[in-house]
Amino acid sequence: MTIQKFARYLPILDWGRRYDRAALGNDLLAAVIVTIMLIPQSLAYALLAGLPPEAGLYASIVPILLYAVFGTSRALAVGPVAVVSLMTAAAIGGIVAQGTAGYAAAALTLALLSGLMLLGMGIFRLGFLANFLSHPVIAGFISASGILIAVSQLKYILGVPASGHTLVEILVSLGAHLDKINFWTLAIGTLATAFLFWVRRGLKPLLRSWGLPPALADALTKAGPVAAVVVTTALVWGLNLGERGVSIVGAVPQSLPPLTFPSLSPDLLRQLLIPALLISVIGFVESISVAQTLAARRRQRIDPDQELIGLGAANLGAAFTGGFPVTGGFSRSVVNFDAGAETPAAGAYTAIGLAIAALLLTPLIHYLPNATLAATIIVAVLGLVDLSILKTAWAYSRTDFAAVAVTMAATLVFGVEAGVSSGVLLSILLHLHKTSRPHVAEVGLVPGTQHFRNIHRHAVQTDPAVLTLRVDESLYFANARFLEDYVSARVVGDTPLRHVILMCSAVNEIDLSAVESLEAINTRLAEMGVTLHLSEVKGPVMDRLLRGHFLDQLTGQVFLSQFDAYQSVLGQGADAAQ
Amino acid sequence: MTIQKFARYLPILDWGRRYDRAALGNDLLAAVIVTIMLIPQSLAYALLAGLPPEAGLYASIVPILLYAVFGTSRALAVGPVAVVSLMTAAAIGGIVAQGTAGYAAAALTLALLSGLMLLGMGIFRLGFLANFLSHPVIAGFISASGILIAVSQLKYILGVPASGHTLVEILVSLGAHLDKINFWTLAIGTLATAFLFWVRRGLKPLLRSWGLPPALADALTKAGPVAAVVVTTALVWGLNLGERGVSIVGAVPQSLPPLTFPSLSPDLLRQLLIPALLISVIGFVESISVAQTLAARRRQRIDPDQELIGLGAANLGAAFTGGFPVTGGFSRSVVNFDAGAETPAAGAYTAIGLAIAALLLTPLIHYLPNATLAATIIVAVLGLVDLSILKTAWAYSRTDFAAVAVTMAATLVFGVEAGVSSGVLLSILLHLHKTSRPHVAEVGLVPGTQHFRNIHRHAVQTDPAVLTLRVDESLYFANARFLEDYVSARVVGDTPLRHVILMCSAVNEIDLSAVESLEAINTRLAEMGVTLHLSEVKGPVMDRLLRGHFLDQLTGQVFLSQFDAYQSVLGQGADAAQ
Repeated sequence: MTIQKFARYLPILDWGRRYDRAALGNDLLAAVIVTIMLIPQSLAYALLAGLPPEAGLYASIVPILLYAVFGTSRALAVGPVAVVSLMTAAAIGGIVAQGTAGYAAAALTLALLSGLMLLGMGIFRLGFLANFLSHPVIAGFISASGILIAVSQLKYILGVPASGHTLVEILVSLGAHLDKINFWTLAIGTLATAFLFWVRRGLKPLLRSWGLPPALADALTKAGPVAAVVVTTALVWGLNLGERGVSIVGAVPQSLPPLTFPSLSPDLLRQLLIPALLISVIGFVESISVAQTLAARRRQRIDPDQELIGLGAANLGAAFTGGFPVTGGFSRSVVNFDAGAETPAAGAYTAIGLAIAALLLTPLIHYLPNATLAATIIVAVLGLVDLSILKTAWAYSRTDFAAVAVTMAATLVFGVEAGVSSGVLLSILLHLHKTSRPHVAEVGLVPGTQHFRNIHRHAVQTDPAVLTLRVDESLYFANARFLEDYVSARVVGDTPLRHVILMCSAVNEIDLSAVESLEAINTRLAEMGVTLHLSEVKGPVMDRLLRGHFLDQLTGQVFLSQFDAYQSVLGQGADAAQ
Repeated sequence: MTIQKFARYLPILDWGRRYDRAALGNDLLAAVIVTIMLIPQSLAYALLAGLPPEAGLYASIVPILLYAVFGTSRALAVGPVAVVSLMTAAAIGGIVAQGTAGYAAAALTLALLSGLMLLGMGIFRLGFLANFLSHPVIAGFISASGILIAVSQLKYILGVPASGHTLVEILVSLGAHLDKINFWTLAIGTLATAFLFWVRRGLKPLLRSWGLPPALADALTKAGPVAAVVVTTALVWGLNLGERGVSIVGAVPQSLPPLTFPSLSPDLLRQLLIPALLISVIGFVESISVAQTLAARRRQRIDPDQELIGLGAANLGAAFTGGFPVTGGFSRSVVNFDAGAETPAAGAYTAIGLAIAALLLTPLIHYLPNATLAATIIVAVLGLVDLSILKTAWAYSRTDFAAVAVTMAATLVFGVEAGVSSGVLLSILLHLHKTSRPHVAEVGLVPGTQHFRNIHRHAVQTDPAVLTLRVDESLYFANARFLEDYVSARVVGDTPLRHVILMCSAVNEIDLSAVESLEAINTRLAEMGVTLHLSEVKGPVMDRLLRGHFLDQLTGQVFLSQFDAYQSVLGQGADAAQ
């Protein structure tokens, strides 16, 4: 049916047709809760990205609507998130000075590039690129980013100017300006931070102990940041602290998201290419994990390729409506889900709520101190920092630990881009290293059976004229030479040896490099008067071997089972079994 | 025993103790033949590397001696080779102008860096790095280099100035100077090339048909280049062609290899770092293939790590005695082997022969035309060009074909460094892509047995409440997410399903990313009321799982065999087997 075909690419056609009154009620309720939570969060992430506060609101409106049309998750809430905002600041900060018109235009360009890349990955089904980010790399990167973000916000808490995109740069810059601390700012920032920490940890149990129903206690806890915003804004306005050096948000235009055009300067595009790719992949990985976790709770399905298209559309939306790179955020999506959102329409209602805020509420935040927004960010991102991954990885394997540790260290010391890149590179190198030295077992016949097991672990029957090697890995270029070396080293000097059997039960693939290595092994063994046989070659691997010349050259045979191979070569004049 | 321990690092202690008169005779004969062959070859490769001819002789003397002390191959002949000489020219040509003192000093630096890297790889057992060069990449690279080298020598045949390190650059540069062709040079170059081709193809059969013994016919054929050198030098001298614009070798110092010091300018070191790495790895791969092929014929053993040390020492030798990067060459090693060389002492005698040549014969090559050397190179390198690899790879797999084609194209169009790098990168990406979408089979019980096979290929017994998936690949970061997606997609909507069993018989490894994916799968299935079990987990994989928390969280059990798992979950209240 045509509509189902379209629905594959336009999921709204699927859930839209079945939308009813009950869903509307649930979606509306969720939207109200999420909107209240998103207003301070959006402003704060704009600050983190180095952009004016309204950019955060704009980035939460049209992107949500577009995701609702193209995305497959029923509960994902798309908008600015902490890590992507930090990466945006790092990407643009090195190129354009913050606070200039060029900076905001570059953020649009970054969103445009990221949108196009995500769309492209979705259309060409390149979502597998995200697989290069291993769990240890992501965990290390997110934790290190959390620390970087928290430290980068200290300047707003202290009320001093500071800059930098690495831990050292930021700390040095802060240290150089410590004499300029504004104590009013410090007081507001510290109090707001302490209050928000208390809301997070202590408020809910307190409200529950007062007898409030859980749902209400939860909602009040979510409103904590709003309360901090209202109280500190009132304080600044009432005590006229703006004139005592407390940095405030200031004039924010009262407007719906404007139509904007990203800068297309070739130089800028070239410089933002790699950052946009990293932002796209990191954003996608973060978003898809959240989406799948939430979908599983309702036995719903997420299509990763369609998710790429949804996120791509959302970023293109951000690029043309004054926003910056966005993705599916963890906290906002969980709130949306917990509040009962049933369909992406909840996102659309949230967008309407935020549009109203952008149009009507912006004058109210004129006196909002930046320190409060920084406190919101700090409390939110410290939840990202989870150093237990270091312990888990160490216990599990040195390789995984190395990936976590290098990613964290590189992120903190060299910045977010270097952090992700070196983590990905190291994971790939370590994986290739591991598979380049696969486990090879010399096997013999378990007496009375047709099974062959490792001669070093089991009491098995062997014959001095026959050597059987079982390689526990696919054979491909990274271990092809290893096998050549291994066989050479094992066979040289073993005078009675007449037959080598490679048992291929664990070989899922043999690539051309491995075939050429097998040819070399075959030739070299032949020159020593030793015959090479294969056994238990899997169907697809055999099909491939039949396309080359290796089987024509093979001095021995290919046996269906290792037992057949052993019986047959023993019959071919090898000494009797011991 | 101490001497055997030392002999591991100083193989000369092993063969040196057993050296006798028969070996001496064989080695001396081989040395004479190889020396005669090496004189024109060494001069020619120096020309190819953009260096004065004597550098080729120097690079063949001390490096051979050092390799004889540290190397493990009995027959390998170390010295300048075509591909490494081309890479040397490409690496230095972009930095220093050819013909200057700085150029020669940079060649020494390149040899130094390459020597240190090879030594380092040997000491830290990093030889596996060479595994990143798959056979298709090497084959494509060597063929494309052969074409590049042949084309780069056309300027000497035509007698025109030309430059460039890519096919297009060289051809454009040649085209721009076609009006300056020197016809005497062209005549000498064309005749020498034609003669050498004829020697290669037609001389040996002719000599055999005249009744000469094969060994003599072979030796005369090997002397072909020497004949071309002698005849053309005599022609140029007799007809005074040097004054008619034929470019000649000119004055060559009569000297033993001088003591030289590589430039250590930090800028130069930095620029040569990557080229040195590529030269080291390519040189090592070329050398070890030759060494292993020859060693196998006599059932001798090659130690790859010790080979790295031998080649490293040889390159350090080249760096301090006026040479340039060297490695084990295919043609010279085969000649050495066929001529009967028994020990590395043959190399030492060759070094003495070449030292005598450098000291006494250099005045004789004053009138040697560069066109003859170019002809030697062209005829030698066209043997490297083997386009049949394109056909072989195409027949075998599209992945391998892509690796060959991209490496060749990139080498020709962008030069040697870009060629190797893009080939390596592409192979790794394609491998990760392949393993990121492993084969997953849904399996059922073959009636009357305890075996489980693919439900789409065999008539098997299944139960609607039980889903068994067999993943034919190790589980690691590149396919962890794939498995999550696969299980989600398969399970959602399958209402009667109560148990999922992952059959791990083909899983050789589970890394931390995969464990976290398994945890996510476990949690999501639990939220759908489905239990997750594992079966046939291999010992080392199980050991690792026991170190993490996954098994504590697992809603189901780990079964030793898939049959146990199936029986057990059917007994746990699933519907009766169909």
